[in-house]
Amino acid sequence: MSSTYTVPVQVLIDELGRLPGIGPKSAQRIAFHLLKVPTDDATRLAHAITDAKARVRFCERCFNVAEDVLCPICRDDGRDSRVVCVVEESRDIVAVEKTGEFRGRYHVLLGVMSPLEGIGPEQLKIRELIARLEPEGITEVILCMNPNTEGEVTAMYLARLLKPLGITVTRIASGLPVGGDLEYADELTLGRALEGRRPVE
Amino acid sequence: MSSTYTVPVQVLIDELGRLPGIGPKSAQRIAFHLLKVPTDDATRLAHAITDAKARVRFCERCFNVAEDVLCPICRDDGRDSRVVCVVEESRDIVAVEKTGEFRGRYHVLLGVMSPLEGIGPEQLKIRELIARLEPEGITEVILCMNPNTEGEVTAMYLARLLKPLGITVTRIASGLPVGGDLEYADELTLGRALEGRRPVE
Repeated sequence: MSSTYTVPVQVLIDELGRLPGIGPKSAQRIAFHLLKVPTDDATRLAHAITDAKARVRFCERCFNVAEDVLCPICRDDGRDSRVVCVVEESRDIVAVEKTGEFRGRYHVLLGVMSPLEGIGPEQLKIRELIARLEPEGITEVILCMNPNTEGEVTAMYLARLLKPLGITVTRIASGLPVGGDLEYADELTLGRALEGRRPVE
Repeated sequence: MSSTYTVPVQVLIDELGRLPGIGPKSAQRIAFHLLKVPTDDATRLAHAITDAKARVRFCERCFNVAEDVLCPICRDDGRDSRVVCVVEESRDIVAVEKTGEFRGRYHVLLGVMSPLEGIGPEQLKIRELIARLEPEGITEVILCMNPNTEGEVTAMYLARLLKPLGITVTRIASGLPVGGDLEYADELTLGRALEGRRPVE
């Protein structure tokens, strides 16, 4: 009994430990942090969680986070509905929007294919993407998944699915980051940068 | 507007980002995880936080986490009240208890001296430790702070404070971990292991 935590502390550690990227040690550390801070601070976090769950849902069209049926981007008539950028998560939309380079719409897969974690195409919002193609007159799909194994597998799968339907399928470029250094680039990134070389204008 | 998150999402990310060891990227990742999981799962976490804050407090004697005025260890009459093990946090008590080697009581400092973070002796439960010495008949204090700079500074400070009061002050041994490898030990640890060498019986 005395060698373990009291129940409410253990419950808190367990619940924190379910979060992604939070191991048992971090969960313990965060739990004791929450026990030490003023109650108001801890309550604000608890409230932020319940409030977000109550008010935020997924856009019925593109599965971006939204407070209404459609997200602000899907409601915006000024966006080009013919080009759709497919991303893994809503947070990726924020990253693309920050570039100011894209004026089309999005589609969030809500994940990425990962055989190791048992996530196949049917667990992602792929059927919903196919269903959007005709009604929205989509002509180009930009595959904007992360440049890692899971992202590449998912991009490959989607390309094979979409091309026969007469859709232009593109993939964001992989290469050296702007401001990067050849010397410190890993060989895969440098290989991609070479492979994706473009004529100098 | 469309290049940032809706308010409840941003609030959640901000609150998560206040937790120790959670950077902005992790906060984002955890926030979107919480938005995706069933509401029940997120509610359980929120409830665990408020429940722990409502039910858990610090033991009035040793500052271990407790659900009553005193923690289970301070209430246990079978423990040797003359020996007190001083630790930084409650979680360290769990670690020491797991060894089964200690039958005395504890004192939690609720932190460690850290000039960089502006934490001096007066922010820790040191005055409360001194106040326990006489009424509880404490004869030995084991300094069980972590073997890092902050822990050493705190141990040094406490040793200087306690020794003139006629208390036996000891410090846990530093050295190679059991199952460790000389080859991979850093020089500080190996130095400590040499310094703390003991006669073979």
